[in-house]
Amino acid sequence: MTPLLYVIYLIAITAEAMSGAIMGMRRGMDLFGICLLGTVTALGGGTARDLLLGHYPVGWIAHPEYLTFTIGAAIVTAFIARQLHHLRGLFLVVDGLGLVAFTVIGCDVGMSMDAHPTIVVLAGVITGIFGGLLRDILCTQVPMVLQRELYATVALFTGVLYISLLWLGLDNLQASVIALCAGFTLRMLAIVFSWRLPNFNTEGIRGLD
Amino acid sequence: MTPLLYVIYLIAITAEAMSGAIMGMRRGMDLFGICLLGTVTALGGGTARDLLLGHYPVGWIAHPEYLTFTIGAAIVTAFIARQLHHLRGLFLVVDGLGLVAFTVIGCDVGMSMDAHPTIVVLAGVITGIFGGLLRDILCTQVPMVLQRELYATVALFTGVLYISLLWLGLDNLQASVIALCAGFTLRMLAIVFSWRLPNFNTEGIRGLD
Amino acid sequence: MTPLLYVIYLIAITAEAMSGAIMGMRRGMDLFGICLLGTVTALGGGTARDLLLGHYPVGWIAHPEYLTFTIGAAIVTAFIARQLHHLRGLFLVVDGLGLVAFTVIGCDVGMSMDAHPTIVVLAGVITGIFGGLLRDILCTQVPMVLQRELYATVALFTGVLYISLLWLGLDNLQASVIALCAGFTLRMLAIVFSWRLPNFNTEGIRGLD
Repeated sequence: MTPLLYVIYLIAITAEAMSGAIMGMRRGMDLFGICLLGTVTALGGGTARDLLLGHYPVGWIAHPEYLTFTIGAAIVTAFIARQLHHLRGLFLVVDGLGLVAFTVIGCDVGMSMDAHPTIVVLAGVITGIFGGLLRDILCTQVPMVLQRELYATVALFTGVLYISLLWLGLDNLQASVIALCAGFTLRMLAIVFSWRLPNFNTEGIRGLD
Repeated sequence: MTPLLYVIYLIAITAEAMSGAIMGMRRGMDLFGICLLGTVTALGGGTARDLLLGHYPVGWIAHPEYLTFTIGAAIVTAFIARQLHHLRGLFLVVDGLGLVAFTVIGCDVGMSMDAHPTIVVLAGVITGIFGGLLRDILCTQVPMVLQRELYATVALFTGVLYISLLWLGLDNLQASVIALCAGFTLRMLAIVFSWRLPNFNTEGIRGLD
Repeated sequence: MTPLLYVIYLIAITAEAMSGAIMGMRRGMDLFGICLLGTVTALGGGTARDLLLGHYPVGWIAHPEYLTFTIGAAIVTAFIARQLHHLRGLFLVVDGLGLVAFTVIGCDVGMSMDAHPTIVVLAGVITGIFGGLLRDILCTQVPMVLQRELYATVALFTGVLYISLLWLGLDNLQASVIALCAGFTLRMLAIVFSWRLPNFNTEGIRGLD
């Protein structure tokens, strides 16, 4: 991980842990539940990627200091949650930054395992979105990332752009900076203009089983 | 995998992906969610088995072409979902074929890891049923396979029959064809006659925690 | 595993399987679902720990005899569930014993992988609580362990005490007996006095995403 990516990563897992902690509080969880939900939100994506790729040791097991950030952020959140909503705009920005940073980091891990380019991109997408997905499952709601505005698609775009730039001969730093900027811009535009993937009129559609 | 099993496998993951995609549409998922839910339904069983056995690389990571089938099937489904219900009978047949094929393939993977016969059968059952189980968790409903008519039991029967035939000295092709036919027949009979495992009168039963 | 820990472990997985089976019955599951839910409740914690640590083979795959206990317990439960409620006090005691025994066993596995002390304790906590957490997800309810009275905290306390005693130079048997007794006592006191972690007044707190 380049120093730039590392700093973005630490900021992003802190913000993700805070957003997970708030959701836990709204479900009536106790302090332990809040810390666990914050940590799963922040580190669940990388964990899912590592398990699927067989990439051991898993990120936070090799770097337990990540847990200091996520658990610390969750505990702080438990005491200042009422004030955090005023920072909602800032959170959306940091979350967008985290989404693209997680994706680039996930692609790097995929490449370090000599995976097929499709799998490299998927490793990035999984790193980007599975934290929120696992958080929603623990809160027993249908994962927002499967329903919401352009979010997973931003991860997909970032991952494809990143490995395309590497394939074109750019070095790691150049490719990651361009992919981060382009992916982040797309995410911000998607929020501002409420861009969404096509929805389907599902009225009257019946299941198959 | 024998060519016969391979062809059945590709047909089955396509059908499973379509049934998963339809459930995603009925939950208001966007195109990304539909593709992910279809893929999890089709490939989640094999993935769970590979993670539990430590059998790396996981199936679809070694064979990214499987994703082409599941994602392609999900996208097609998004546009023709309204017509698919007329094919419900066909889907039940293909799903039954998939159930027994997944089970036999899962047993083969278990045996390739030199697992205990109990674990070999369970590897088959997990391959057969965990895709639908993960799909239901992502849709926040109690997994149907834990409640419904003879389904997991068909996988159990198929797995036990398959390894018993191998133990009796039949070769791989003979044993798999017999197990596939017998398991598929049992599944079709279970649908036609609505066979179920015993239910329990649970009125008045109180929890322990 | 010392013989003492092994006996406690077998009793505990039997009791956990029974409590999981009862929850499955109350959700209208069939016999297969009841057996699967009982087994996940009993063995899910150790399985999650082994997957996260990359500790293969997973416990019940190396020792399929554990499945005999959990499946047997679930089947028995299906027939005597109505009588079991009278034993609720006994179950709370055995569940508390299981919680601390699972934690000590999980710490031992973490140490056998040369993990960081933080990860060793977490390996214990995950072993202690993830069975119930996975059971609740399969029943689509927000995991009780994230909301309830001192439960995960008991695992945390037991794990920290256990590795502190080892670090102070006690041998494995001494440290585990003291940690088991102290953790179990804390759990019993928490039940008797309804001790809880702090709750937060979450009225008016809004989410960040």
